[in-house]
Amino acid sequence: MSTLTDISVHPLSEAQQRIQQDLLTALDAFAIPEPLKSAVHHAVMLGGKRVRPALCYATAAIQPNANAAAVRRAAVAIEFIHCYSLAHDDLPCMDNDLLRRGQPTCHVAYGEDTALLAGDILQSMAFEILGSRLFDQGPAVEASIVLKQMQILATASSKMVNGQVLDLQAEGKHVDQQALENIHTNKTGALISAAVLMAAVTIFEGTDIAIPKLREFAQAIGLAFQVQDDILDITSDTAMLGKTAGKDQQVDKSTYPALMGLEAAQAYALELHHQAMNALAHFDESQVAELTNITQFLLTRKA
Amino acid sequence: MSTLTDISVHPLSEAQQRIQQDLLTALDAFAIPEPLKSAVHHAVMLGGKRVRPALCYATAAIQPNANAAAVRRAAVAIEFIHCYSLAHDDLPCMDNDLLRRGQPTCHVAYGEDTALLAGDILQSMAFEILGSRLFDQGPAVEASIVLKQMQILATASSKMVNGQVLDLQAEGKHVDQQALENIHTNKTGALISAAVLMAAVTIFEGTDIAIPKLREFAQAIGLAFQVQDDILDITSDTAMLGKTAGKDQQVDKSTYPALMGLEAAQAYALELHHQAMNALAHFDESQVAELTNITQFLLTRKA
Repeated sequence: MSTLTDISVHPLSEAQQRIQQDLLTALDAFAIPEPLKSAVHHAVMLGGKRVRPALCYATAAIQPNANAAAVRRAAVAIEFIHCYSLAHDDLPCMDNDLLRRGQPTCHVAYGEDTALLAGDILQSMAFEILGSRLFDQGPAVEASIVLKQMQILATASSKMVNGQVLDLQAEGKHVDQQALENIHTNKTGALISAAVLMAAVTIFEGTDIAIPKLREFAQAIGLAFQVQDDILDITSDTAMLGKTAGKDQQVDKSTYPALMGLEAAQAYALELHHQAMNALAHFDESQVAELTNITQFLLTRKA
Repeated sequence: MSTLTDISVHPLSEAQQRIQQDLLTALDAFAIPEPLKSAVHHAVMLGGKRVRPALCYATAAIQPNANAAAVRRAAVAIEFIHCYSLAHDDLPCMDNDLLRRGQPTCHVAYGEDTALLAGDILQSMAFEILGSRLFDQGPAVEASIVLKQMQILATASSKMVNGQVLDLQAEGKHVDQQALENIHTNKTGALISAAVLMAAVTIFEGTDIAIPKLREFAQAIGLAFQVQDDILDITSDTAMLGKTAGKDQQVDKSTYPALMGLEAAQAYALELHHQAMNALAHFDESQVAELTNITQFLLTRKA
């Protein structure tokens, strides 16, 4: 695995290129009838930060002998799950979003029925890829490792849906920090943790303390990512619309700044950042250079 | 595994009782927030013939030393996938069905968003159950066997969606027998085959000729099931509504009787029945007593 440390502009850009190619290769491996094939392609290739695959690669970089194929399959699988969730989230019965990243959402481009089915098949395709020999150049990975990856992915995928429900239930209500944390831990945190853990199980035994350390790391950055998102919403609103944090709080939106105030939210993001770095301190600095870079980027990003 | 041979009235009824209990146990193993929990329960417990679990059990009965827990998990997992597909099929953007088995469909009872999420989570729950230790009383099943089950389920789940698309594409068109067969092989056949094969891999090595024989059997009954469905549609229509096969053909509905005529369709169902029984001839009669019973029932059923 090459490192991301030499990318000064954007630590995700190399991972973005790698995953882009692997996603295309993976999509080509499936025989899907039209128009579903185009809809699936659309849902997957819309782009995005590709944070989850980047976390897979960076975790695998802890140990140079990580099975590259198993990690690449995990990265594709987790991105398939993420893209399925976006296609379903955008549907009229959910968020009814017409645009995503400047392009028509899947149901706008292909109709609701096809967008629904695109999300459905992307979920099973994720498990197919994980259990396949795609990208293999050497012997097959042990079945017990692939099985662990599947268990991690399935559990995270279910948690993600639970998080969606908790989020829908919280709409228009004022929830406390524990409830907010519960939403995000499930809705986005579970898949971010899974990205790290699906790579981790390819290099560490289940009893290795590295696994709980990486879980701790992933949980902290997953939550920090969300807190930072909430903070950026306000920052960019202030710059662009002249809205203030105080106004956001007045409309009773359940965000971290609304809940605890902007400064306290910024302090909390920093605290989670420290938690993440403390968990990584278990490893040699050079082993976690990529994970450190991504962490730094995620928490200092401006958009 | 007890046999179904002593059930003279309905060879599926014992399997129905067994799966009912196991589905409830499996559902209880998940922490799902309301209203999703109730929606998932509704989608799963609406009932139905439970043909797929029955095929799992009957296949496992070929060998008395089949791992009972692995077979029970497979039966639950495949029924979860089937129920997810029904919940999504019933949605307004698909078939827009309001009633299923005399009860309100999932989206009528819980709203479209929750029904969508119920289907989504049932798919990942299927993989969670398959990779769990639920029902285990002895040592864990080999990881390689569980992995095979997951691969079979993931592939079948994708094929099912492809079949849906092919079916949507064929709406209002006159398709030939090959196209019709392609629709059904994917839409319903894949999951029926998976039910048989997920049990088969718990008792036979991948190289055992029993596996292709059982695949052949499953493909034949999967298709026969559909041909019989098409025939029954006409028969029950004739009795209930006075519609004739001739009229059905005139509206250009793509069914086997419409395509080849009622008598030829009946002959085709019988031929597929023979194909299925020929595949089972590889085994001792006593080993496949349950599979034979189910086959007989599926092809002589009146509803």
